[in-house]
Amino acid sequence: MEHATVVLTDSGIEAGQEILAVEKPYSVALNDVNIGSAMVLETGLEEFGAGFLFGQGYIEHPGQVREVLVCDQGRILVHADVDDNVEPKEVIITSGCGGTGKISREMLEGKIAPLQEYNLPFREAGQFIRQVLHASELGQTTHCVHGCGLWTEGKLQVFFEDIGRHNAVDKVIGAILMNRASAKGAVYTTGRLTSDMVLKCARIGVPIVMSRTSASSLALAVARRSGLTMVCYARPGRFNIYNEQKRIIR
Amino acid sequence: MEHATVVLTDSGIEAGQEILAVEKPYSVALNDVNIGSAMVLETGLEEFGAGFLFGQGYIEHPGQVREVLVCDQGRILVHADVDDNVEPKEVIITSGCGGTGKISREMLEGKIAPLQEYNLPFREAGQFIRQVLHASELGQTTHCVHGCGLWTEGKLQVFFEDIGRHNAVDKVIGAILMNRASAKGAVYTTGRLTSDMVLKCARIGVPIVMSRTSASSLALAVARRSGLTMVCYARPGRFNIYNEQKRIIR
Repeated sequence: MEHATVVLTDSGIEAGQEILAVEKPYSVALNDVNIGSAMVLETGLEEFGAGFLFGQGYIEHPGQVREVLVCDQGRILVHADVDDNVEPKEVIITSGCGGTGKISREMLEGKIAPLQEYNLPFREAGQFIRQVLHASELGQTTHCVHGCGLWTEGKLQVFFEDIGRHNAVDKVIGAILMNRASAKGAVYTTGRLTSDMVLKCARIGVPIVMSRTSASSLALAVARRSGLTMVCYARPGRFNIYNEQKRIIR
Repeated sequence: MEHATVVLTDSGIEAGQEILAVEKPYSVALNDVNIGSAMVLETGLEEFGAGFLFGQGYIEHPGQVREVLVCDQGRILVHADVDDNVEPKEVIITSGCGGTGKISREMLEGKIAPLQEYNLPFREAGQFIRQVLHASELGQTTHCVHGCGLWTEGKLQVFFEDIGRHNAVDKVIGAILMNRASAKGAVYTTGRLTSDMVLKCARIGVPIVMSRTSASSLALAVARRSGLTMVCYARPGRFNIYNEQKRIIR
């Protein structure tokens, strides 16, 4: 969306023109029961619906999702094989910039199943990072969008973007849940790694999570608890490895 | 918190040392009823408790908050003069990096009371921005913290920081609710402006909201609806004004 602005400087006033990323509220329903609403960028909505329900703990693994329908008027309908009686969970609203922004205390403290087996060659990582950073034209024009990609077997499997860094990760996880991508790979996000971001990836089985930027203390705690490889300030040719170096092959 | 890392480059491996911002879950109770939990940086917790309840729509204006107690073991107890029967609201989980990360649909679409009257001299704004950016030592060492300040009558009234950009704003709003700061001023945040960020400020009556970075389409919509002055990419000596230029005095 384009918008005329007024640019004020020490030397005067001039007309500006900015492009804004468009956020829109979407509600997500599981088997026709409304679970919640979220502000999203209107791309990858099917994946978002599935990933959102995973993030909230309603869906647990690929194979449960049967069908996802995106309706006009802001609704995403997910049909999945889950228990009819979903117990409400004690949720923690997450600190980090958080799209879906809440996780259950049980998820934060509970057991995490073993991760998938995957090693990332260091020489491939540069390509991976460059492809994610160049994939988002909207990010470059609006400065208001986070990107997230999944890499495996030498190529970028999926890439998604959203105003919320969480939503972008949720879309990648949704792709895994819908069998459009494999968890046997590495995730790279332009956003910061907070506990919930790392936890989602660990729960779906992704063994390597990389960020363009930093991580919080609890993100590291989740990485340690799950044995996940966590890389911050990841650049082509430079990794700062916070946990489990073993999966990065030189 | 300090953490030893492994830095991998094309030319070899070396030991690294990073400082991580510490996030911790805190629950917030209103008149002894648990409302929710959030991951926060452990500063400005009293203000956070009040601001969190405002963000969720449980507290509406200064004068309602009677007392805020921060207990060990992660609890913030807010005592306030509010209706005993708080109706649950339909919430929208917000896209933007969202600490508190949810707002009621009613709040997003409902009426907003007139804002406070305040004009910001452009020559003061440079000082304001510099003071906020230099206030956060933790931000400079961790790259994982957002800062938010409130400026009025030629000086920085309050400054808060948090891992979540929402939480940092909630702390500033909590300070207003606790009569430790006045809404007759300008807010500057290092985080992006999404709808909920602007809405919170408009609801408490702050007339000017400025960001180091960008805004989303709905943030602009809220600014327009409330008549709020919104400035993006705010730098000392350069403002990009998206709405209501009139309050920035040259």
